[in-house]
Amino acid sequence: MRTVYLNGEYLPENEAKVSIFDRGFLMADGVYEVTSVLEGKLVDFEGHAVRLERSLNELNMPHPITKEELLDVHRELVRLNDIDEGMVYLQITRGAPDDRDFVFPDPETTPCTVVLFTQNKPGLANSPAAKKGMKVISIDDQRWGRRDIKTVQLLYPSMGKMMAKAAGADDAWMVEDGHVTEGTSNNAYIVKGNTIITRQLSNDILHGITRVAVLRFAKEAQMQVEERLFTIEEAQDADEAFITSASTFVMPVVEIDGKAVGTGEPGSVAGRLREIYLEESIKAAV
Amino acid sequence: MRTVYLNGEYLPENEAKVSIFDRGFLMADGVYEVTSVLEGKLVDFEGHAVRLERSLNELNMPHPITKEELLDVHRELVRLNDIDEGMVYLQITRGAPDDRDFVFPDPETTPCTVVLFTQNKPGLANSPAAKKGMKVISIDDQRWGRRDIKTVQLLYPSMGKMMAKAAGADDAWMVEDGHVTEGTSNNAYIVKGNTIITRQLSNDILHGITRVAVLRFAKEAQMQVEERLFTIEEAQDADEAFITSASTFVMPVVEIDGKAVGTGEPGSVAGRLREIYLEESIKAAV
Repeated sequence: MRTVYLNGEYLPENEAKVSIFDRGFLMADGVYEVTSVLEGKLVDFEGHAVRLERSLNELNMPHPITKEELLDVHRELVRLNDIDEGMVYLQITRGAPDDRDFVFPDPETTPCTVVLFTQNKPGLANSPAAKKGMKVISIDDQRWGRRDIKTVQLLYPSMGKMMAKAAGADDAWMVEDGHVTEGTSNNAYIVKGNTIITRQLSNDILHGITRVAVLRFAKEAQMQVEERLFTIEEAQDADEAFITSASTFVMPVVEIDGKAVGTGEPGSVAGRLREIYLEESIKAAV
Repeated sequence: MRTVYLNGEYLPENEAKVSIFDRGFLMADGVYEVTSVLEGKLVDFEGHAVRLERSLNELNMPHPITKEELLDVHRELVRLNDIDEGMVYLQITRGAPDDRDFVFPDPETTPCTVVLFTQNKPGLANSPAAKKGMKVISIDDQRWGRRDIKTVQLLYPSMGKMMAKAAGADDAWMVEDGHVTEGTSNNAYIVKGNTIITRQLSNDILHGITRVAVLRFAKEAQMQVEERLFTIEEAQDADEAFITSASTFVMPVVEIDGKAVGTGEPGSVAGRLREIYLEESIKAAV
């Protein structure tokens, strides 16, 4: 049984419960982060901590825990649950006021809820999926307008994953006004020759922590990076496609809406970026 | 202290807790209904039960409780908490699987979470706000695309209420592509002469239970009803404006973005519809 963290306490996972009045439960008024663990260490903790701070600020939510305390809790959970490869999930909600109300509660009387738990994923770095590549379908992007804030409003991404599953695919790329926004829980990329193309940052997509690192590694490897809109048709005609996320790193996409991308096999650019990302991440992990 | 209902048990409110792995908490994977109580009885329970069923169906969620059981729980909570005027809030989530995953859990092993609680609101029918009227501001509608499903993804409506508060107003009307969709937790109407205008039903707005009843009463009172798009400017120039919801019934709107609607006082149409609605609702309450 896992040990999880809830509001200052380390508890067995089956004892970790929140009030039914928690605004995370009643109103999706919460934000989250997922940090990968490789060789027992945290990958890009700093990037996740900074984005968390931004999410809290955008929602006028208090900062209930310092970055230093957060790092301690992450490390303690990794230790207690003996995680070599896996993830640490963190969620902060606006807490549990005495009653349900659309108006934000007073932060003086209603402390935020802070939850962290680990997910053990042996073989995460050496994933067979990375050798096989993923199949994606395209779906209409029906999410709210502030996808740059990492909120727990994940019902549509979850529905998207189910649509993909029903279509025999692994994930869905979302399309808005004719252009790909991102995957259900990852950023989307295509490769043409020596150029990597990915949608520019805005409120329309998550500002991926892994995205920042991978684009930096691509530039260091003398690749061109174009941040711009692209369509599903352009993606299907590309040489390669891939996704990035904190928990899948770099993962090749070999099929989009039933059409093979490039050779239909994982591409060399995605493969090389995955290798560099893992190598550099393990080196810098804390 | 209130008695609340959680998964078959009646509990003191401070003991009603859900797992941190509940999909309502982690992914906003839940739906809800709010039923008003007048003279100790439930207003339009049938309408809410039917809409709940539709929400569950749209999300491929199991139906964890029959309509008859649900009615019993509503009545028992009203009795236990001695509610004369107020609300019964009901939420169903896809339950708490063993771990966080975008893929829906197997309903065989992961039962839904069912929560109900009451809110005591003495004076609800005779609300002073109905005599004074509400001020609203307009804000951009940033919600997801399936507002016809009554999900707990209420962060943006909650933010909208805070924007209204900050602007010295009572609520916000949301605008998409130049037209009013609805209020943060209510349907929006304007009145021109003998005609009531409200946006037509689609995935863009909630299919209000109170909306159905009020439009029926309006037609019975020989008023014209036009279901069509309207703009904020048209609303500001209207003779009257109002909102409807299960918990506010019919509530006049006297100011939109700082501009008085009509005389700037609650209108007679809204007043008359509120009276008829309350009278008929109490008659039909169960």
